[in-house]
Amino acid sequence: MSVLKRYDLEKLAVATVASHTALQILRGAKKYGFRTIAIAGRADVAEFYQQFNFIDEVWTVDFRNFVKAAEKLVEANAVFIPHGSYVEYVGWRQALEAPVPTLGCRELIKWEADQYKKMELLQRGGIPTSRVYKTPEEVDRPVIVKLFGAKGGRGYFLARDREELRRRLAGLSDYIIQEYVFGVPAYYHYFSSPVYGRVEVFGADIRYESNVDGRTFGWVEPTFVVVGNLPLVLRESLLPTIWKYGVQFAKAVEEVVGCRLAGPYCLESIIRDDMSISVFEFSGRIVAGTNIYMGYGSPYSVLYFDRPMDMGERIAHEIREAARRGRLEDLFT
Amino acid sequence: MSVLKRYDLEKLAVATVASHTALQILRGAKKYGFRTIAIAGRADVAEFYQQFNFIDEVWTVDFRNFVKAAEKLVEANAVFIPHGSYVEYVGWRQALEAPVPTLGCRELIKWEADQYKKMELLQRGGIPTSRVYKTPEEVDRPVIVKLFGAKGGRGYFLARDREELRRRLAGLSDYIIQEYVFGVPAYYHYFSSPVYGRVEVFGADIRYESNVDGRTFGWVEPTFVVVGNLPLVLRESLLPTIWKYGVQFAKAVEEVVGCRLAGPYCLESIIRDDMSISVFEFSGRIVAGTNIYMGYGSPYSVLYFDRPMDMGERIAHEIREAARRGRLEDLFT
Amino acid sequence: MSVLKRYDLEKLAVATVASHTALQILRGAKKYGFRTIAIAGRADVAEFYQQFNFIDEVWTVDFRNFVKAAEKLVEANAVFIPHGSYVEYVGWRQALEAPVPTLGCRELIKWEADQYKKMELLQRGGIPTSRVYKTPEEVDRPVIVKLFGAKGGRGYFLARDREELRRRLAGLSDYIIQEYVFGVPAYYHYFSSPVYGRVEVFGADIRYESNVDGRTFGWVEPTFVVVGNLPLVLRESLLPTIWKYGVQFAKAVEEVVGCRLAGPYCLESIIRDDMSISVFEFSGRIVAGTNIYMGYGSPYSVLYFDRPMDMGERIAHEIREAARRGRLEDLFT
Repeated sequence: MSVLKRYDLEKLAVATVASHTALQILRGAKKYGFRTIAIAGRADVAEFYQQFNFIDEVWTVDFRNFVKAAEKLVEANAVFIPHGSYVEYVGWRQALEAPVPTLGCRELIKWEADQYKKMELLQRGGIPTSRVYKTPEEVDRPVIVKLFGAKGGRGYFLARDREELRRRLAGLSDYIIQEYVFGVPAYYHYFSSPVYGRVEVFGADIRYESNVDGRTFGWVEPTFVVVGNLPLVLRESLLPTIWKYGVQFAKAVEEVVGCRLAGPYCLESIIRDDMSISVFEFSGRIVAGTNIYMGYGSPYSVLYFDRPMDMGERIAHEIREAARRGRLEDLFT
Repeated sequence: MSVLKRYDLEKLAVATVASHTALQILRGAKKYGFRTIAIAGRADVAEFYQQFNFIDEVWTVDFRNFVKAAEKLVEANAVFIPHGSYVEYVGWRQALEAPVPTLGCRELIKWEADQYKKMELLQRGGIPTSRVYKTPEEVDRPVIVKLFGAKGGRGYFLARDREELRRRLAGLSDYIIQEYVFGVPAYYHYFSSPVYGRVEVFGADIRYESNVDGRTFGWVEPTFVVVGNLPLVLRESLLPTIWKYGVQFAKAVEEVVGCRLAGPYCLESIIRDDMSISVFEFSGRIVAGTNIYMGYGSPYSVLYFDRPMDMGERIAHEIREAARRGRLEDLFT
Repeated sequence: MSVLKRYDLEKLAVATVASHTALQILRGAKKYGFRTIAIAGRADVAEFYQQFNFIDEVWTVDFRNFVKAAEKLVEANAVFIPHGSYVEYVGWRQALEAPVPTLGCRELIKWEADQYKKMELLQRGGIPTSRVYKTPEEVDRPVIVKLFGAKGGRGYFLARDREELRRRLAGLSDYIIQEYVFGVPAYYHYFSSPVYGRVEVFGADIRYESNVDGRTFGWVEPTFVVVGNLPLVLRESLLPTIWKYGVQFAKAVEEVVGCRLAGPYCLESIIRDDMSISVFEFSGRIVAGTNIYMGYGSPYSVLYFDRPMDMGERIAHEIREAARRGRLEDLFT
């Protein structure tokens, strides 16, 4: 991004939206010597973030006019770290246009707005995905239905068979019907490093979802709203495959979307009881699951570095190294 | 507490009952240079604690006469860190009277002995709580019944409707009937710091309860006995609210109970699938859930400090800083 | 092992099979200054391990002729750390004979090949075990059936009563029928240290099993294939008992099997809702559950050491200390 050329690299600031993974992002940035800016949408949220010393500035802005905030970020010599809530808060159109250097492949946001295109991109990467049904008539087993724009697990429901599916789809539009794969959920965190020319498998988590992960005894219908994350380590014999899928995904983004997937991303899967993996989602940027190792670092980070590192530190490390090597433009779009 | 005035602050000892969270409390204390004393109720327990170098003395005492042990603690120049098992072992009357400087708001123990007063205190703090039913007749949905003096999850049972409730209550007295809220359990750890004049949100856990968290397939009735704890990080957008509830609770204790809630405490909740929180319990002192980050520190501790810290270290840090500033009386009652 | 006498202790290498817990074993070894060798069975696995700087050499070998690889390890001045996948990959006969110094009690592998002998060894140690039924006719409650050679949870099934059991056993042989204990699973990690003359309780985990730990709503039959591990801390009042069982097991191995249980091992249990423990399995070497604290260390490691340590580092620490004291032969067989 050409605006980066005018930045004073000695005084770089790192900014993100005050939610999701902002705490680890800004703490990591501060640890690596950057100025830090949190952008809140409400005063009470701003108040929470203001109490932390590692956050230099907390701005309260109107997310409906995020482009303006982005212009101010450029004046503040700031690069921007997008996360899942960012796109949700400002909308994908503003996220595409915001004139601030933004980590990773911005164009990918377009693909993520469409569940069918998401699945297509995974398949182009040779990653095994859950079967998608074009019509309810094709359905011959339990399925999960995701409404377009479903966020954080809200807007999902299960149907055990075609009959139930038909009944529940009545009156709905803009959804995707996927095979409900039996197994256990597992979310893989990756970091694509232009500086080191590699994809790192960084960690894994399980989402903690209300109410399905509670004790409901079948007394209420399952819902899937993410309220937290749980740390997971993977069977080591699965790691080569999981790493390979991460590499393949980064390559697919480069080839199909046409831009570099720099920074953190995530593949979201079910592991079946034959140990095969079925990926049903991806996230093209940092996921909240990386919060599980804030401060003390991820188990897998020590595979690549001398000491444990959390994802916020990993991002800051990459920015610092890229800045030193005059390669910031490899990270930001 | 006036006895503190006679203490030699250079030779302060930290003591606790050998159970619950004693390992992290004493290890943290040793790390900050305090002498450490573990007080066991049985020889085999004492034997276990004796093997650790960070514990200077292990006493075996008769908990039925804890007041005597407390007197010896004063002679030993010791402050005392209470935890959940302490009150269980020595009884709330002795805990109220033990003549040793005790961390936090001792008077709160009285409120905790009565489930109705507990809920009242939460409500006085403006914290959303699970509905309490005065009589079985009012019940119109699934409920959980807690016998008074229930401890560690023992003495809880569920009733799906009024009929089942009536049947199961037959012959019982001294219980509280609460709405059984559907969602996921989440326990929030706080630290109230007189030294820094703030409430810190320090971490979160999930209790690991036998048999309800096992694979029972509905073949046996659910029971809720806590046998361990699992680490949890929260959706970051929930953190401002969770922090606020912690602040409000500390304030309510000060206003209603009339003493300062110094040190660790906990709010215990269900998070519903609309992300609203329903608090059903609190603990006025350190909870066992903080054991999850013993040694390497909690994810949220780095929000306040340069390096990760566990709750035992956090307590020791507060004592050292208070001692330096001549403010120990702000911590102990 | 006499070959150790010819080793150059200044240039010791640590080797293991590239799977299971190899990453933490080799990373720990490198941290303590040893050369490191990963032994892979396939080229794609080798490729994964080759990317890590802490692994000096990755060998690709034919596991059907592991004895040959073992001879090369001796030439390379290497000691060998066995893990669960090792025995699975090379077979217990080769594992018994491989002429490379191997950590721990090699003879124990024989006992582990027979489910009945495993249970016997636990009982000889005075450890409470799940009831074993000699015939289906004795069965009067839910049971779990484990086929001999079941690995990683594959080859297990449940039967709720005698009728179901009979039906499902038809045509099968070589299995063990165990009481299905209701409660929660908990796996305890120990380290037996000849250098310090003690058994350390090092950590605990829960296995993450597909599909039983997923959201299956009873729509499919439960299966128990381990795909990862979750961190667990135990109720502290259980720790003295859990530590004692670890001590008793090490003693039983010494007395009954006749060799020293040096290094990591594991007891695998259900904790009932009366807090009693029922052990249904053991592992005589490092378990994958220890991967949960790779890099940042286990909560209980700080009970014994000044800083958190993971199991890979713990092993390397023991080897270094034994080498310094001329006691390597206490570790390897």
